This record gives sequence, structure tokens and C-alpha cells, in this order.
Amino acid sequence: MIRIVRSTIIDAPTDRVWAFLRDFNGHDRWHPAVAKSAIERNQTSDKVGCVRHFFLRDGSELREKLLGLSDFDLFCTYSILESPMGVENYVATLRLTPITDGDRTFVEWTAEFDCVPERKAELVSSIGGGVFQGGFDALKRQFGG
Amino acid sequence: MIRIVRSTIIDAPTDRVWAFLRDFNGHDRWHPAVAKSAIERNQTSDKVGCVRHFFLRDGSELREKLLGLSDFDLFCTYSILESPMGVENYVATLRLTPITDGDRTFVEWTAEFDCVPERKAELVSSIGGGVFQGGFDALKRQFGG
Amino acid sequence: MIRIVRSTIIDAPTDRVWAFLRDFNGHDRWHPAVAKSAIERNQTSDKVGCVRHFFLRDGSELREKLLGLSDFDLFCTYSILESPMGVENYVATLRLTPITDGDRTFVEWTAEFDCVPERKAELVSSIGGGVFQGGFDALKRQFGG
Amino acid sequence: MIRIVRSTIIDAPTDRVWAFLRDFNGHDRWHPAVAKSAIERNQTSDKVGCVRHFFLRDGSELREKLLGLSDFDLFCTYSILESPMGVENYVATLRLTPITDGDRTFVEWTAEFDCVPERKAELVSSIGGGVFQGGFDALKRQFGG
Repeated sequence: MIRIVRSTIIDAPTDRVWAFLRDFNGHDRWHPAVAKSAIERNQTSDKVGCVRHFFLRDGSELREKLLGLSDFDLFCTYSILESPMGVENYVATLRLTPITDGDRTFVEWTAEFDCVPERKAELVSSIGGGVFQGGFDALKRQFGG
Repeated sequence: MIRIVRSTIIDAPTDRVWAFLRDFNGHDRWHPAVAKSAIERNQTSDKVGCVRHFFLRDGSELREKLLGLSDFDLFCTYSILESPMGVENYVATLRLTPITDGDRTFVEWTAEFDCVPERKAELVSSIGGGVFQGGFDALKRQFGG
Repeated sequence: MIRIVRSTIIDAPTDRVWAFLRDFNGHDRWHPAVAKSAIERNQTSDKVGCVRHFFLRDGSELREKLLGLSDFDLFCTYSILESPMGVENYVATLRLTPITDGDRTFVEWTAEFDCVPERKAELVSSIGGGVFQGGFDALKRQFGG
Repeated sequence: MIRIVRSTIIDAPTDRVWAFLRDFNGHDRWHPAVAKSAIERNQTSDKVGCVRHFFLRDGSELREKLLGLSDFDLFCTYSILESPMGVENYVATLRLTPITDGDRTFVEWTAEFDCVPERKAELVSSIGGGVFQGGFDALKRQFGG
């Protein structure tokens, strides 16, 4: 099992950042790698168990399942059902915590997965650097940070 | 703020207990105090933010909102929107943890709320003893424990 | 029970901040309110159960007990044994989390306690604002933030 | 990274079980695999950072370091410094949680470590089954469970 932990600070109140990130189908509006996304079977994006089917700008096609969502603890957990990435047992959690000093937001994005050993370094870089830090950078451009 | 923590052991595998407890609208099938329940606005009971409108056997009417649900961490969090109980800021979490030794389930039910000081003892008893332990006793009758 | 949560960002790597905050007897070196402190019974300050006996600059005398300490999860938990503050059942936790983006540190300081209702507002202000935010401000002057 | 999670129920109040398990140097009194143990450098066993140097009944020699200990959250975390087991980055946590229904104790013992792939199955069995469940069985003989 491989674990990736990335975190950042967004210079905006937590309720504003959560309103944005809460939508499991909204990543095509904020993550630069995501081209378009739709929830399967006409379900709402806050129904635990729903699946988002999306395409990256490089043409990759993925399906991810919402495993958990909390408006109280401010996190969502999801797994990858299908992707070209070569990962197995991939589960990730995106979590917000308020920073009282300055009314800002601490964001932590973690993932655990399995892969063949020879792909580990590349996946840690592409997920931790590309997907997670790339998403943080987009949020910081939008909200400040 | 008052905190109540109650916990028990159910003598059944965690996935079986979770399949039962996951349904935010299913408490009228397992909790002895609940007479009938319905999710408002025709929403599904696993949509985070849905509201269950239910009646106790004593005729009390309550509305509770699903704040969080996770099939990964096996918990649900909810708040009371309306009740005759005289509580404010009531948030509760019901959480399952597998017990590997014997393939059983550890169940923890916690609540935090505010109330007028003179009602504290009565509410701790009726919620901790009646609602939580009463629910545990019903689960144990059903599953063993 | 009253809960106070305060958090900030320190612009320094987490291991540097932890090396500083880990010492349960070191608060007279960084917290502006603390004049001098000593661990009772000649014990080391990382022995769980040790008691720090200290004086504030205003002359107040306090005794606090170390309940928990972790170099892995980067937190310490302590209770107040004696103080002139008028609090009961006071337990606080100071916790650090690394921020990978920028190699900074998220610091969260929480407390729970009981007090007579008429003193609640004053204590929330003096503990949350004076003790916690006052400590954060000193850390930020020292490390940046 | 490999993760092992084992859990059980001890039929005794949590404060009694904790009084027993809290002593990082006390495992030679309750764990059947441990022959004798001593804390290095004459330190106390509740000093975070202390090292226990011990011998198993099969003659194996190990050194483990106490990384965290909490009388509030009732857990200890430790790492393996030296062992013949062939593990790296081994960190384990033993945690107690009260079960209010029956005044019993939920015990969870987890570990994470790295090893060469061909030893994974053997280590999961010997650690999860031998060390952890073997320890649980001894606790249950002593306290009931």
C-alpha cells in the first residue's frame, strides 16, 4: 500500500471553500485536469454511493465512487472504479479544517492505493504533484492562498 | 454543551450490521421507539442533507437531518431540526468498527447538545438510556450480542 | 462543557515547531504570559503524568498535568490541576500537522472545561484569545506565520 | 506499506485494562511471547522516547521505542528499532475504548510496516496472529473476554 498526503492553505473562509468542493461532480469547474464530468444514473452528487464518470483534458476516462461525505466534518472520501492509471484499491479523502487565525482553510488530500513496484515513483509524483498539488494551485488562484 | 457516549457489542459481522443501520430512514424497522419515518421531498435516505420526518410510539414528532454518511468509515452523523425534547445544537454520530476476534461489531453512539441546566439529568437518561441503549438492546435481540 | 478551538499557521517546518513545543516545561521560553515553570518531583517533561508548576507574569500560580504526548501524532494533552481561573475538568490539546505546500505547520489548540455560566464569555475570551491566540502570536513572531 | 488491524473485547473495565497495559515495560508480565524486558538508560517506562530492550521466549532480541502515550485517549504508539523480523518503518498502536454496555473494553492493535514482498504473508500471520491475537488471548485469560 502506498500513502500520499498533501496539504495546503486556502485564503478563504472554510464554508466558502466547502460550498465549492462539496459537489462531487463539480471538479470540472475547479480542477485544471478535468475536462467534463457527469454523475451516472441521474443521481445527485451528494448521494453516498454515486459514481462520477469523467474525462481528463488528456482524454483519459475515469469512474470514481463517492464513499463518504460529511457537511459536519467537511470531508469526502471516494474510490477509483476505473482508470488508466494502473492503481488498485485506490481510496482518497479531501478534508477541510477551519483556521481561526485569519479565517482561512487548511486543506488535506490523502490517498492510499496499491500498484506494481516499478510504477510507484511515477504515480506518487503524478497523483501527489499533478492531481493534488495541481488542484491546490487552482484553488489558490481562485480563492487566494 | 452536554456529551453522551454509549457503546455496545453486536454479535454479527460489521457489514451485516452496517447494511441494516446505513439506511437513515430505516430506524422504524429496528428502533423500538420509532413508529414510522419518511424522508422529506422524496429524496433518497443516503443523500447527505436529506431530512427524516418521523413519529415515536408515544406520538412525538421529530425531524432530523443527515449531515454525514460514510460507507468507508461506517458512520452517520445527523442533527435534530425539530423535536419536543428541548435540546439545541443536537448532533449525534452512530459509528461501527469491526472486531476481528470473533467477527463482531463495536457500535458507538455519541451525541452533543445544549439544554437548560435543570433538564440535563433527565435528557442524559432519556437519550443515553432510552434512545441509545434502547436501540442497542433491539440490535442485540436481532443480531445477538 | 465549553469547547474552545483556535488554530493558526506557523511558517516553519513542523519538526522545528515540534522540537520547540514538545517540551511541556518549555512554555516559559515561548509563551508571553508564562513567567517561570518547573516540573514537580524532579521528573522529565516528557514523562506522561508529570506536573508543571508555573507562574504567569500577573503572578497567578498554576499546576498542569501532562496526560498524553506523541512524537508520532505530534500533540500533547494536559489538564489543569490548580489555577485561579475558575474552571473545572479542563483538558486541552495542542496539535501540529505538516502543511506540505510550503513546508509550514498547521497548529490547533483546543480545550474543554466546565465553569459557572456567568463566567463563560470571559473565560472563552481569556483562554481562546489570551492564552491560545497570544501563544500563536508569539510563535509567529519567532518562526514567521 | 502493510497494515495490520486486530481487535478484541476484554471483559473488564477500561481503567483496569489500561492500568495493566499502560506500562511500556510490562509486556513480560502479560504477553506470552515475551520472556524479559527492561527500559534502557534507567528511564521510566512512561517517558515518551524511552526504549524497551526485550527478549522473546524463542531467544529473539528486540528494541522498541515509545513514540506516544496518552492516559486521556488510552493508547500507546511505538516503533521497532531492532528486531530479527525483517520489517522496516514498523509503527504500532495499541488503543483501548470503553464499552459502556457491560463495562467492558474494546482493544484495537494496529501496525504499519514495510518488508520484502515475499515475506508479507508470513509477517501478517506472525504479527497479526501471533503477536496481536496471542496477546489478546492472554489478556482474555487474565481478565475474561
